[in-house]
Amino acid sequence: MLYIGIDLGGTNIAVGLVNEEGKILARKSVPTRADARTAEEVAAAMAEAAKALLGEAGVAESEIASVGVGSPGAIDREAGVVVSACNLPFRDTPLRAMLERYFSCPVHIENDANVAAWAEAVAGAARGTRDSLMLTLGTGVGGGIVIGGRLYGGCNNYGGEFGHMIICEGGEPCGCGMQGCLEAYASATALAREAKRAAEQHPESLLRVCAEREGGFTGRTAFDAAAMGDAAACGVLDAYVRHLAVGVINLIRIFQPQVLVIGGGVAMAGEALLVPLREQLGHFCSAEDVGEKKTVIRAAALGNDAGIIGAALLGMEVSA
Amino acid sequence: MLYIGIDLGGTNIAVGLVNEEGKILARKSVPTRADARTAEEVAAAMAEAAKALLGEAGVAESEIASVGVGSPGAIDREAGVVVSACNLPFRDTPLRAMLERYFSCPVHIENDANVAAWAEAVAGAARGTRDSLMLTLGTGVGGGIVIGGRLYGGCNNYGGEFGHMIICEGGEPCGCGMQGCLEAYASATALAREAKRAAEQHPESLLRVCAEREGGFTGRTAFDAAAMGDAAACGVLDAYVRHLAVGVINLIRIFQPQVLVIGGGVAMAGEALLVPLREQLGHFCSAEDVGEKKTVIRAAALGNDAGIIGAALLGMEVSA
Repeated sequence: MLYIGIDLGGTNIAVGLVNEEGKILARKSVPTRADARTAEEVAAAMAEAAKALLGEAGVAESEIASVGVGSPGAIDREAGVVVSACNLPFRDTPLRAMLERYFSCPVHIENDANVAAWAEAVAGAARGTRDSLMLTLGTGVGGGIVIGGRLYGGCNNYGGEFGHMIICEGGEPCGCGMQGCLEAYASATALAREAKRAAEQHPESLLRVCAEREGGFTGRTAFDAAAMGDAAACGVLDAYVRHLAVGVINLIRIFQPQVLVIGGGVAMAGEALLVPLREQLGHFCSAEDVGEKKTVIRAAALGNDAGIIGAALLGMEVSA
Repeated sequence: MLYIGIDLGGTNIAVGLVNEEGKILARKSVPTRADARTAEEVAAAMAEAAKALLGEAGVAESEIASVGVGSPGAIDREAGVVVSACNLPFRDTPLRAMLERYFSCPVHIENDANVAAWAEAVAGAARGTRDSLMLTLGTGVGGGIVIGGRLYGGCNNYGGEFGHMIICEGGEPCGCGMQGCLEAYASATALAREAKRAAEQHPESLLRVCAEREGGFTGRTAFDAAAMGDAAACGVLDAYVRHLAVGVINLIRIFQPQVLVIGGGVAMAGEALLVPLREQLGHFCSAEDVGEKKTVIRAAALGNDAGIIGAALLGMEVSA
């Protein structure tokens, strides 16, 4: 059977035709036009894009086992409702019911962070495991939990908010209104902020040069300057990894997952992030072997495709 | 059917005959004599105590559905092995196999913190829920996780170490060798330490009087002095609850459990602890209603009986 996955964003609706192994066979993207459309119109645009993709790929709708949607915001997956979502015209929107009118197969909806964790668990860096976590280091810090081969979201599906785990009482202010959350230290935003601070304190460092080349301080700046041997940048990364390690140690001590997948923009640095992180984690994690009964830390394998793949394979959840 | 639960401690082996509702119908306790016995001998003493209890209660072994054991230490529940346990002569001890020789029914073994969480989930404060946590505030701070109606321990069954979640990087030293763990702030030991510190700083306070009455500073001292209106004691409790709330907020943000059960010695304070804690938690938790889709905070309901009840009902896990 084949699956349709829809990665719904404020800017684009990305649709993919996915096989049981989590491979994207065909894809297409259309603008969301969230500011100019009602919820019904966004749902119609999603369905239309999916049907157009099927037409282009020459696949009959009867070959589709299920349609899955990853949406930003707070999702009541059991009710199939988007409770709220920034940048989308959704408020207690019964998105699943709206989409079911267009398809004869089952429709699933889920929060986009959970969808990414599901994609990595089923077809990515945590494939073959039953208990895994995904920690996403992007503009914010997000997370997703897979336990016993199923997505776990808690009583309201808002679980997995790893970014708002407080690791330093009274520490850096966080966007959530509290202080000392992991997000305030481990997001790409925090890494860019620290690179900027260090550049101001060390005008001789290469941080500013790298930032100018990139059009401003980003989560990459410190990695780029550190790769050139810049001491201030190395200091920024050391501190970043130390904070991140606290969050990861907490997650390991709480969950002891088989695999903890690290994704998001900062994880694009790959081994430049993972090598010092594993060093900080020391005996808390295993180098690679899932059989060792220690958590394995791995970079996300699916990148931006996780949104489509995870959404498509939501239909596989129950049988996993 | 009936169940036998064995709460194995370094000092005593407590055995109970338990019904399907988690009610203890009969019980008996014998000394462990851990320092003078081999693992085989401890297992034999456990089996003997269980059989003696059945005899006293006039119950045939054929009426017993399963035998469950809660043991301190690191347990490989799938293999039925006690990997290690302080104060017990166990080291990679196949305790389940040892006990199976004495019984014709299935035998289950599990870590004692998990057993307590299981007891509260099945027959205590979290009865009727599928996703609950137990946070135990004792000499140390422990935890247990029930997800989807099953105990969750992670890849090595060492999960649920809520006490060693770091809530304050670089903070109070913890027995685990790290700094700023929840245990260093929220254990009864930490509460006694802070009461002692405050008594030294405020010689006029009632803290010292209460401590002398109790034979030393304990987790109760600050509660007792605060109940008499002592300002220094109130300050100690305020700070204690603030730290504890950070740990609880983290657990809610990560798990969004239906119920978070607080047990252990400090929880004996009941509403004197829970009222200010719920106040600190504010919108993070619901007052009482599990249907509200917010975590409900409750004191443990089973006290010390959780060890026997949870062990006995380990056999119910799979069907839950």
